[in-house]
Amino acid sequence: MSIPEDARTSIRHDKPEDIAVTKTPTDHRGLRVLGLEECLERLRTAAVGRVVFVDTGEPVVFPVNHAIDGVDVVFRTSWGSKLDVAESSGVVAFEVDGYDSLTESGWSVVVKGTAQLVYESADTDRYDQLGLRSWADIKGLGFWVRIRPVEISGREVIPPSE
Amino acid sequence: MSIPEDARTSIRHDKPEDIAVTKTPTDHRGLRVLGLEECLERLRTAAVGRVVFVDTGEPVVFPVNHAIDGVDVVFRTSWGSKLDVAESSGVVAFEVDGYDSLTESGWSVVVKGTAQLVYESADTDRYDQLGLRSWADIKGLGFWVRIRPVEISGREVIPPSE
Repeated sequence: MSIPEDARTSIRHDKPEDIAVTKTPTDHRGLRVLGLEECLERLRTAAVGRVVFVDTGEPVVFPVNHAIDGVDVVFRTSWGSKLDVAESSGVVAFEVDGYDSLTESGWSVVVKGTAQLVYESADTDRYDQLGLRSWADIKGLGFWVRIRPVEISGREVIPPSE
Repeated sequence: MSIPEDARTSIRHDKPEDIAVTKTPTDHRGLRVLGLEECLERLRTAAVGRVVFVDTGEPVVFPVNHAIDGVDVVFRTSWGSKLDVAESSGVVAFEVDGYDSLTESGWSVVVKGTAQLVYESADTDRYDQLGLRSWADIKGLGFWVRIRPVEISGREVIPPSE
């Protein structure tokens, strides 16, 4: 599996009417392009996603269990120093994927956006209602992080039957 | 789940005797540190992993199905232009993880190293024997990529029972 990201579903958070903009149903490699609603549904139902960002030129990746608040990806983490970096590092990516070993089909959804630590109770109270049980809370060290998307893209590949 | 990477199992590919060096069994957050053999076993058995690298300052992440050759991560992809970037971009990361919704336990293994496109038949013939069925081959566009690790780290978190 290798899912290119050259065709993308771009959204602007401040212009919700743009969210519905999607590209053609397949890209030039024949991969099915997932529409925004399908991307959001897969983001909502995936148990685990990966936060990816750049720290002093090197890629950093770590898994989190997450929730979706509107189109924002939210999660709790105790990884404070790293997320201070993420918050100031520009573009952050968040990835979920799935693989069916029976059909050998796979898919991937990638959110790109900016990360913010969220302290405002108007937001965190709402996040607390999302039913997220995060391991970061084991030692009571967790705080909320929001990734606000600039771009959401998804691809699915289904191998031809033999 | 949030798995810090501040304690790491470092290896040097040219000094195999260093590979066995592992850190303490738990890090300062109480997460269990996986030893190198355990990391390699989880890399070998994971169906899907994610390649992560930096392209013009932004994180790029895409899933692949992969195999392990010694301690190298190998996979096929048709994503040529992006991997040209990966090959010249310095550090590349490769991540696998797992999550058990019943026990709410999770783990993550991250390889950091350098990516190379592999053309030598002495290598590719061996890779061809690894039993990897890659979707990149659907259109016959795939070629082999190797990530040679400089560092392999793994963490596991098991929430306390309630």
